[in-house]
Amino acid sequence: MGASTKQGYEIAKKSRQIVKSLIDEKTINLTDDEKSIVERIVHSTADPEYAELVNMSSNFVEMSLKSLKNNEDIITDITMVKSGITTYGGSVNCYINENEVKKIAQKYEITRAAAGIQYAANNGFEGIIVIGNAPTALYKTIELIKKDEINVKSIIGVPVGFVGAADSKNALTNINIPNITTKGPKGGTPVAVATINSLIRISKIGQE
Amino acid sequence: MGASTKQGYEIAKKSRQIVKSLIDEKTINLTDDEKSIVERIVHSTADPEYAELVNMSSNFVEMSLKSLKNNEDIITDITMVKSGITTYGGSVNCYINENEVKKIAQKYEITRAAAGIQYAANNGFEGIIVIGNAPTALYKTIELIKKDEINVKSIIGVPVGFVGAADSKNALTNINIPNITTKGPKGGTPVAVATINSLIRISKIGQE
Repeated sequence: MGASTKQGYEIAKKSRQIVKSLIDEKTINLTDDEKSIVERIVHSTADPEYAELVNMSSNFVEMSLKSLKNNEDIITDITMVKSGITTYGGSVNCYINENEVKKIAQKYEITRAAAGIQYAANNGFEGIIVIGNAPTALYKTIELIKKDEINVKSIIGVPVGFVGAADSKNALTNINIPNITTKGPKGGTPVAVATINSLIRISKIGQE
Repeated sequence: MGASTKQGYEIAKKSRQIVKSLIDEKTINLTDDEKSIVERIVHSTADPEYAELVNMSSNFVEMSLKSLKNNEDIITDITMVKSGITTYGGSVNCYINENEVKKIAQKYEITRAAAGIQYAANNGFEGIIVIGNAPTALYKTIELIKKDEINVKSIIGVPVGFVGAADSKNALTNINIPNITTKGPKGGTPVAVATINSLIRISKIGQE
């Protein structure tokens, strides 16, 4: 799981065995690829509850892998999520600190994370959106999809927090776009990063 | 909590009220600054369990603030943690991708995260160490402190995972350096980032 040294590899291997034993029964109805994703999320958070919170649409893995194999763009809501995605062959962008994005945020009184998604749509984005933090970025994505103003192949929508996160994730499951999400307030950067990195790995070498 | 727009500010304010109501009883013995840190951790993870898992040494806040007010260096174990620390006046470094660090990791068969701490010690580091991911980086820090080979003012030691994390955090509580940590396998980037950002904010404007 990203380990590049002997010590790192041994830790990852042992952790994987523990994670499997903790969640095997809860992931019995998943495909092998879907299981890999859930395992990596639980490995990254040390929180087995995620095996019960994670929900993927049936076409999420297939459509995500197709996009990744074409090296389409990935955008993230915050830079922390971007910095966790280090082995992708295509572009990984986060626009939250762009001057243009700050202007959009001020003009429309929205968060910079949401404005970053608008900015991507304005600039012909096509690919996968990874949201690990901001419900507002997820709502903006859903709004743009409904207006047919953004070309999204799949969404990793796991914003975290007690205000808006759960509702935004419910809204995501009601639109017809391949997606992964988590029930309730929990989610966050490690969940988002684990998911996309698991998919990138599968896209390169097949099953993890 | 880092919000720079009206929408972001309103979400943060409402979240803070919810977090307070969830953890108020569990933080009754903490100082106001310590409470601020725990609140920000729970806000960032949406996981109230952290109110019971977080442990700070009694001098952690004081010694951390002193170091931050002197703009001493901050180092992190992984780049994801570094990228979450955006408002500090001093330097924030992560050495995991340095060529020299890769060489140290290979030579001693340790993780690159641990080698990054060794590299910092070799280069006269003085300040705060923030570990959000790698138990091996925390063990290396403890080893260097015991050998008096690194000048650490405080440690945010919240590595995550089922292998080594809990033991490394136990080891941290047994050395005489100001520290914050979490019991058990849980922890991670959001916990580390919430803690240091809360301290940076307090160091600038007083109580959050």
